[in-house]
Amino acid sequence: MAVSNIRYGAGVTKEVGMDLQNMGAKKVCLMTDKNLSQLPPVQTVMDSLVKSGISFQVYDSVRVEPTDGSFMDAIEFAKKGAFDAYVAVGGGSTMDTCKAANLYASSPHSEFLDYVNAPIGKGKPVTVPLKPLIAVPTTSGTGSETTGVAIFDYEHMKVKTGIASRAIKPTLGLVDPLHTLHMPCQVVANSGFDVLCHALESYTAIPYNMRSPCPSNPIQRPAYQGSNPISDIWAVHALRIVAKYLKRAVKNPDDLEARSSMHLASAFAGIGFGNAGVHLCHGMSYPISGLVKTYKAKEYNVDHPLVPHGLSVVLTSPAVFTFTAQMFPERHLETAEILGADIRTARTQDAGPVLADTLRQFLFDLKVDDGLGALGYSKDDIPSLVKGTLPQERVTKLAPRAQSEEDLSALFEASMKLY
Amino acid sequence: MAVSNIRYGAGVTKEVGMDLQNMGAKKVCLMTDKNLSQLPPVQTVMDSLVKSGISFQVYDSVRVEPTDGSFMDAIEFAKKGAFDAYVAVGGGSTMDTCKAANLYASSPHSEFLDYVNAPIGKGKPVTVPLKPLIAVPTTSGTGSETTGVAIFDYEHMKVKTGIASRAIKPTLGLVDPLHTLHMPCQVVANSGFDVLCHALESYTAIPYNMRSPCPSNPIQRPAYQGSNPISDIWAVHALRIVAKYLKRAVKNPDDLEARSSMHLASAFAGIGFGNAGVHLCHGMSYPISGLVKTYKAKEYNVDHPLVPHGLSVVLTSPAVFTFTAQMFPERHLETAEILGADIRTARTQDAGPVLADTLRQFLFDLKVDDGLGALGYSKDDIPSLVKGTLPQERVTKLAPRAQSEEDLSALFEASMKLY
Ligand SMILES: NC(=O)c1ccc[n+]([C@@H]2O[C@H](COP(=O)([O-])OP(=O)(O)OC[C@H]3O[C@@H](n4cnc5c(N)ncnc54)[C@H](O)[C@@H]3O)[C@@H](O)[C@H]2O)c1
Ligand SMILES: NC(=O)c1ccc[n+]([C@@H]2O[C@H](COP(=O)([O-])OP(=O)(O)OC[C@H]3O[C@@H](n4cnc5c(N)ncnc54)[C@H](O)[C@@H]3O)[C@@H](O)[C@H]2O)c1
Ligand SMILES: [Fe+2]
Ligand SMILES: [Fe+2]
Repeated sequence: MAVSNIRYGAGVTKEVGMDLQNMGAKKVCLMTDKNLSQLPPVQTVMDSLVKSGISFQVYDSVRVEPTDGSFMDAIEFAKKGAFDAYVAVGGGSTMDTCKAANLYASSPHSEFLDYVNAPIGKGKPVTVPLKPLIAVPTTSGTGSETTGVAIFDYEHMKVKTGIASRAIKPTLGLVDPLHTLHMPCQVVANSGFDVLCHALESYTAIPYNMRSPCPSNPIQRPAYQGSNPISDIWAVHALRIVAKYLKRAVKNPDDLEARSSMHLASAFAGIGFGNAGVHLCHGMSYPISGLVKTYKAKEYNVDHPLVPHGLSVVLTSPAVFTFTAQMFPERHLETAEILGADIRTARTQDAGPVLADTLRQFLFDLKVDDGLGALGYSKDDIPSLVKGTLPQERVTKLAPRAQSEEDLSALFEASMKLY
Repeated sequence: MAVSNIRYGAGVTKEVGMDLQNMGAKKVCLMTDKNLSQLPPVQTVMDSLVKSGISFQVYDSVRVEPTDGSFMDAIEFAKKGAFDAYVAVGGGSTMDTCKAANLYASSPHSEFLDYVNAPIGKGKPVTVPLKPLIAVPTTSGTGSETTGVAIFDYEHMKVKTGIASRAIKPTLGLVDPLHTLHMPCQVVANSGFDVLCHALESYTAIPYNMRSPCPSNPIQRPAYQGSNPISDIWAVHALRIVAKYLKRAVKNPDDLEARSSMHLASAFAGIGFGNAGVHLCHGMSYPISGLVKTYKAKEYNVDHPLVPHGLSVVLTSPAVFTFTAQMFPERHLETAEILGADIRTARTQDAGPVLADTLRQFLFDLKVDDGLGALGYSKDDIPSLVKGTLPQERVTKLAPRAQSEEDLSALFEASMKLY
């Protein structure tokens, strides 16, 4: 289990200029998206940079739910700028774009696919040194400030994939709950579902000592190790916070306690899944968002069709955990209980349905769209959804139970309608 | 908060040769103490180094409870060897000695006191790059594999002090529970008390947002931040493991489950206190071990008088937590409950005595010496014990309640006899 350096507290973002000074930065790239560029979190960072006398350039063309094309644009900007440090202010879309920009600007002779996860890319290990990157999350979801992962939509294949390497993990994450007060309720909900699934999936992932193949040299260990006693702590703790605070955080924008707690939960779950990994909800989510037709998420303020990441992971969760509960029923029951289920009379063989019902109720209470059908998918799309899941082996292999193509079809089918 | 890089599992030590190879090491220093040099943990490491074709030299003169003199000896060895990596195999004494050897060999023009904590030393920040250090703990106590701390006895002043810098944190900790099977029961008990106090003290330390002075630049933040939502998780979790497993681990050398769990708890508590800090039990322990007269710990197999670190911290714990409970009584009650107390009818103002009684019972069950009196101290020693505590401001200031010299005297006096 590996290092994530984060600093938490209301107002810590104000110190970012000094942090960069301490790192010896002279020419900084500040990345964000168009929405955020008009909001206080970015303003706070700019003020701090100005105060510390650090010269910087702003790149605010980050695409919400980035693509290889949008990554490339940011990479070009980074290459031209010859920056000596980066600050990413935004959600997962911004932090991930900034990680990619730093990576490829530091490795100018690489082809884009070199570092992309196999089998879509070549999955080469990163050996070049990167510049320092400070991540300032403004959503409470991805935990990207703590992980060595950058996700994008590979447009030719209409499927999400990513880059995973410890080398792209941010140097420092500034987790400042004040930023969460500006988040639209739908972003709170969807990014909160991401936290929920990071916690549930990493806690139910195959245990680290049952993962195969066991690499002969420790350098070949994957970033994702399987569930382990350390990631378990983060997962359970994050889940408790989700159970206690997510609904409050969604419903009341002024509930600083709830929103702060979720902001920290996002980092906790990130440290957990960043070591243990995620599995089926995430593996199946990549085609769900990649194949989007016309669905446009409310309150996301973007001009392209979009299934927010958190929504794309959570809609399959009732089906997924019904399927995986066969393997570690106790853990599934335990998470159901944390989420509010009364499990006193539940039998081991009911673990899946109990957790699934709990999740359905949770989503219903938050008025979440009624399954993949509500996003515009129908039975006819299942073959392409399955096809888009197959290359996601890096995560799907971490599921506690192996899946055939038929299993995946059935899981998508069961997720078409939830209530 | 910085999380440490550790790898946990039975047998992970066998990979150490490959890890060093991956780090590019060609000439390695293997540090240990005389006892351990004859035991399987060291043999396993040597076999792995040989198998990976890595040339190494062994330094096995680590002193159990090191002193400035013994640190110096190891530093000389390190300087002459011009090593490009270090492996420390042993308890806190070995890991701490190795950290110091790496530091001063990497900074050959520094005086010994340069990096030692103020006011005893100059407390200079470390700016030189160090060589990689892999720590392989063989006790379940200090968590030194996760911390940037190295403790020694400063003989001129007969008081313990140390070096604290993120720069000396091990590159990697290999937490291999198989090593714990060789530990004598007394070492299990005393190092387990160290875990207990790391957890209790970091959980009750002053909260990070009440610490003063608040540094104007983040680079001046001390290594110890005060209790915070992240260190709290580690502390509580470590405490739960201590409550469940310490007695079993002491009483039955073959109880691999109990001994493995304590081994992990030691690292957990280390990550917690490495961020939050410890306070009075540790601050007061430094003169208790520094001023030792003739006491010789059983099963420690050394030829000098010695109060093991874990024993020196735990004996004042009933008095200390009675004193500090005034400030955060709920946290004190919560820890008492985790340690087995029935707190249903306890009132807030009883938090101190409830926790103290629980600790006394715990120590009594494990047949621990009856207070400082049993170590050879009497009332007459109190002024020197207090004098030795005063320079330990780095930790004592983290106590939730400020202490006058009279308070410290009273705490030592109350710790003379426990049962
Ligand atoms: N790197 C990882 O470890 C990881 C993990 C999970 C998901 N992801 C990826 O992260 C992306 C999703 O990121 P996200 O959920 O954080 O959202 P996001 O970055 O896509 O942002 C969502 C929307 O919220 C707006 N927004 C963000 N913060 C705001 C604030 N404080 N106030 C007002 N508006 C705000 C944005 O402008 C945008 O319109 C996806 O591409 C997903 O695949 C990455
Ligand atoms: N760096 C930190 O963060 C930190 C924290 C707390 C304490 N410390 C320091 O660590 C030192 C104490 O370390 P410790 O409690 O780990 O013990 P130790 O290193 O002093 O070892 C105690 C005894 O146990 C023996 N031993 C250790 N492991 C064994 C095994 N597996 N099998 C058989 N024998 C074994 C040793 O040879 C020695 O005789 C003190 O100097 C203390 O101040 C450091
Ligand atoms: Fe996610
Ligand atoms: Fe200690």
